[in-house]
Amino acid sequence: MIFEERLTSYVTQIERALDAALTTADCRGQESIVEAMRYSALAGGKRLRPVLTLEFCRVSGGSPADAMPFACALEMIHTYSLIHDDLPCMDNDDLRRGKPTNHKVFGEGMAVLAGDSLLTYAFETAAAAQIPSDRAIRAIGVLAHEAGYYGMIGGQVLDLAAEHRQISHAELTTLQDMKTGALIRAAARMGCIVGGASQEQLQAAETYANALGLAFQIQDDILDIEGDEAEFGKPIGSDEKSGKSTFPGLLGLDACREQVRSLTDEAIAALGVFAENTFLTDLAESLVGRRK
Amino acid sequence: MIFEERLTSYVTQIERALDAALTTADCRGQESIVEAMRYSALAGGKRLRPVLTLEFCRVSGGSPADAMPFACALEMIHTYSLIHDDLPCMDNDDLRRGKPTNHKVFGEGMAVLAGDSLLTYAFETAAAAQIPSDRAIRAIGVLAHEAGYYGMIGGQVLDLAAEHRQISHAELTTLQDMKTGALIRAAARMGCIVGGASQEQLQAAETYANALGLAFQIQDDILDIEGDEAEFGKPIGSDEKSGKSTFPGLLGLDACREQVRSLTDEAIAALGVFAENTFLTDLAESLVGRRK
Repeated sequence: MIFEERLTSYVTQIERALDAALTTADCRGQESIVEAMRYSALAGGKRLRPVLTLEFCRVSGGSPADAMPFACALEMIHTYSLIHDDLPCMDNDDLRRGKPTNHKVFGEGMAVLAGDSLLTYAFETAAAAQIPSDRAIRAIGVLAHEAGYYGMIGGQVLDLAAEHRQISHAELTTLQDMKTGALIRAAARMGCIVGGASQEQLQAAETYANALGLAFQIQDDILDIEGDEAEFGKPIGSDEKSGKSTFPGLLGLDACREQVRSLTDEAIAALGVFAENTFLTDLAESLVGRRK
Repeated sequence: MIFEERLTSYVTQIERALDAALTTADCRGQESIVEAMRYSALAGGKRLRPVLTLEFCRVSGGSPADAMPFACALEMIHTYSLIHDDLPCMDNDDLRRGKPTNHKVFGEGMAVLAGDSLLTYAFETAAAAQIPSDRAIRAIGVLAHEAGYYGMIGGQVLDLAAEHRQISHAELTTLQDMKTGALIRAAARMGCIVGGASQEQLQAAETYANALGLAFQIQDDILDIEGDEAEFGKPIGSDEKSGKSTFPGLLGLDACREQVRSLTDEAIAALGVFAENTFLTDLAESLVGRRK
């Protein structure tokens, strides 16, 4: 299957599964919060994390369908983190993916609860997966660890603390490895666990995810400077305006472009232990070249 | 063992386990959020929910120690719900258990993250339990379900929607069954699952928890009217002041006292399927007579 075909197929399946999981049918009077959860979870996006979970499951010898509950759980956690991150007491953003942010539509109290609910429902969804329970428990452990204060939330804490000061390149790398990298790592690791990967494959997947996650973030910073607002979907120059430390600000644009290239090469080089690796290679390449 | 002895022993073990789980040693630069999590998680409280988990595990034939990760997970989830509930965009409370609320001490952004982190870490803690993984997965599924929008969060949503209007007795019963009852139900169900209870015992535990949870909430409403501020630990009359619908407001104090008594009897009557049930009987009785 060619890259674009498989990618489209994955994204379609993921959005269908999210839509089915977050149904207002039989929600026992909880339409209002389910609507708030759906508003953000079904607002589009690249679905990079769940795609990685499905594909790593496949190349580890499993069926992508087995990994779907974990892929959805990951996307729910990614979504909740965006809702809480946009709150007035955090980044105070009015727009996300070109739409008003969750709290702008549903109010702050409801946005807090919609985020809490997506985070909780992620684990309910994962726990309902029809796979051997020893693998399910391992995958849930990885998800909670990478989403927690050792991972994504830890990155948010560093971000909050870095708000009004310049940070070093090392600090920014750690921050982004936690804030963005952790869930990408969880995506790869969970796919491998569900698919039954070897220890060697699991390590390679982690190397791939770490390099890809960092390249992804640097590319994001580059696009915030030289991207096209309509394509990128966010206002250009927002990092500079908010005084955020960025990779181009610390290293310059040229060094950043080189880093994205070398990290992408590093990610691709790790894939040798998987017999089928063209999709993951193409995915890494597509992220270097991305304009959005 | 007499009731008070076992209760004290459980509470001591639970607080020791929470203290050990939320350690700043080896927290990789995340001292600030761990401190915020500890501040609320180790602020005392009755520890009713984790005590129920440990005891239901024991009377189902298991070792209470096996249920400890789930007991801690439950208390972390209870704690996160209090932190988020106290936020300015929710109940906007300045005091909790006689201490400034989490956001008053650490700021709103940090309080949101500390809550998120406790919720996430609850599942990491549960997933690390050293019990057969099929039981662990079932217990995690129960926890996520009762903590989510079908349970506790659903109750918060109803609470938010009821803020500025009088609700009926039926609506208030549903609200409290979700907001307070759900985690008490989760406590009983998880204890039974970890301990290997029969289906009959599991159902009895749920009946006990449902009756106890409602009696607990009605007693709370009674104490808000006729309690002693120093003993109760919260300002007396706060419900009336905030215009909240309460059971005494809807039914009168006498009918409420009768309800607490009959619900307690109902809870105790359900315990017949457990060979050892004196602790759970005494626990129910102690909640009827409580002044705090």
